[in-house]
Amino acid sequence: MSQTTRLTDGRKSFEVKKYTFSTEVIPRLSCHDPECEERIENGLPVVIPDANLVASARHWNLDYLHDNIGDGKFMTYFSNSKKFKYYDDKKCPNIKSFKKPMEQEELTFDEFVKKINKGKSKGQRLYLQQTLNETVGKNIVSDFLGFNWNWVTAQQKKNSFGPLTNNMLLIGQEGNITPVHYDEQENFFAQVYGYKRFILFPPEEFPNLYPHPTYHPCDRQSQVDFDEPDFEKFPKFRNASGFETVVGPGDVLYIPIYWWHQVESIPNEGHTISVTFWYKGRPTPEKVTYPLNAHQKVAMMRNIEKMIAQALNNPDEVPEFMQNMVLGRYT
Amino acid sequence: MSQTTRLTDGRKSFEVKKYTFSTEVIPRLSCHDPECEERIENGLPVVIPDANLVASARHWNLDYLHDNIGDGKFMTYFSNSKKFKYYDDKKCPNIKSFKKPMEQEELTFDEFVKKINKGKSKGQRLYLQQTLNETVGKNIVSDFLGFNWNWVTAQQKKNSFGPLTNNMLLIGQEGNITPVHYDEQENFFAQVYGYKRFILFPPEEFPNLYPHPTYHPCDRQSQVDFDEPDFEKFPKFRNASGFETVVGPGDVLYIPIYWWHQVESIPNEGHTISVTFWYKGRPTPEKVTYPLNAHQKVAMMRNIEKMIAQALNNPDEVPEFMQNMVLGRYT
Ligand SMILES: [Zn+2]
Ligand SMILES: [Zn+2]
Repeated sequence: MSQTTRLTDGRKSFEVKKYTFSTEVIPRLSCHDPECEERIENGLPVVIPDANLVASARHWNLDYLHDNIGDGKFMTYFSNSKKFKYYDDKKCPNIKSFKKPMEQEELTFDEFVKKINKGKSKGQRLYLQQTLNETVGKNIVSDFLGFNWNWVTAQQKKNSFGPLTNNMLLIGQEGNITPVHYDEQENFFAQVYGYKRFILFPPEEFPNLYPHPTYHPCDRQSQVDFDEPDFEKFPKFRNASGFETVVGPGDVLYIPIYWWHQVESIPNEGHTISVTFWYKGRPTPEKVTYPLNAHQKVAMMRNIEKMIAQALNNPDEVPEFMQNMVLGRYT
Repeated sequence: MSQTTRLTDGRKSFEVKKYTFSTEVIPRLSCHDPECEERIENGLPVVIPDANLVASARHWNLDYLHDNIGDGKFMTYFSNSKKFKYYDDKKCPNIKSFKKPMEQEELTFDEFVKKINKGKSKGQRLYLQQTLNETVGKNIVSDFLGFNWNWVTAQQKKNSFGPLTNNMLLIGQEGNITPVHYDEQENFFAQVYGYKRFILFPPEEFPNLYPHPTYHPCDRQSQVDFDEPDFEKFPKFRNASGFETVVGPGDVLYIPIYWWHQVESIPNEGHTISVTFWYKGRPTPEKVTYPLNAHQKVAMMRNIEKMIAQALNNPDEVPEFMQNMVLGRYT
């Protein structure tokens, strides 16, 4: 039996798996607390229990959604393990040996609910991840319009975020894990139903988390498996040090752009329903100041890696090119 | 006593130091031989004994130059060892710990000749390396105009080289070594007096030769010391495999752009006098073909390295940035 540790969402306490790295707790602050505002301004994560961002959806559960969400299609991922490691279909041809870590299929909500039960008998898990769109029924539209757009739009303006890009509906089974990765957008993550554990790492942790090459289908995902870290291949993972929290119904977690996050629907606590509010990042400042920060360096690395892959016109040639440029020269 | 091997310039045979790597002999071909033309076209080195490129200078020696070259200044390097490792003065502030491997001073030719003898008593060697300019006396101008411009300009046109950038006059003491490096120009190297050993490596050998970072004063120079290779730091140097030759009076060596070369004035054979004919490279082809060749990849690495150093605005940050981008990710 692996070691455990305890985490709380401020109301309830949970026993969760303890990983190899240490973490601090992400502060939980009222949206009226100036420190909360400050953290968002400074690109630091914060849990906000009282933003009422999705209070209009507090009655959402599988049954209610089943009856009201309509006949649209919902992208659903199938995994034979707890882990749902995202991959970019378009990049699969880049890695001949790549084996898709999960399957995906577009289902109606009715099919999704039925397949959850079927999956259980097969040891297969499901994770619904679909941008909310115009196919949803009128009750859902009304709940959606009732989101606290005032608050979230005020945040967007105050922090000079770019436009809202999408609201993703996420429905996961208990125990489902989205392995550690970073996104290239700002995210107000709103928990509607159930409990999710979040483990975050700042962009400074890039060297400790060893993301896949940009041309790899698992671009933006860490290569490190938290359950069985390969310290020989990834020695700096020993230096990793993160932040964590549990969010429950009504909580909003601000996940700053380029911050790493692993998300776990807490085992034995039922399924989870969440809605993301993704915004484009701040515009690049007109005046660059030095030294560049970790976020800027990560963006720069991404551009360089993409440029090299494009110039070589063959992903297979990238590793050797990188090695020749760096090994014995910058090591 | 280190091992030796024998080399010939086609007339005379020389006993030279044997290094750790193997070499093939560079072909020695008449300028009328179609294979000679082919090699230049294909960017392969060749020794040409009968191009008569500097036949008009066959009477040059230290005395003649002393009496005829005028009162201009000649850049002269001073080294306390056999090696004259070039460094870029402008890049010295980039590496705080950098110790200049040689000194430099502008001397009149008269001062140069006198300092050669003074240097001998101090164990100090001199190497004159100066672009021929308008200060030279009329006899030298006349010899210069008598160079076989017909032949060399025909080569330039036939091979779509860019413009002639300069003719460097090189005067080295016996035993002087210019350590292995590459230049970013095409070079017809004309030997006027004495004997020089050339060791060449194609651009494909970049990973085996570990050039300094581009921002380092010794950019374009290998970090490997042929006399004492550090195989632990530079393991791929074991795979190095080169080409070599000796050039004597009247010989021209075509050194293709981006080809590595180490040049040694042969010990105990007197000083050497040479003139370089440096041309800008071919224009980049309009249509890129894949895979890129080694020459293109080296140019690409240089651009990337320069871009990164510029974006970080601090050379000290480049190694860590490179390591973070590559180690455990592309290795
Ligand atoms: Zn994410
Ligand atoms: Zn050179």
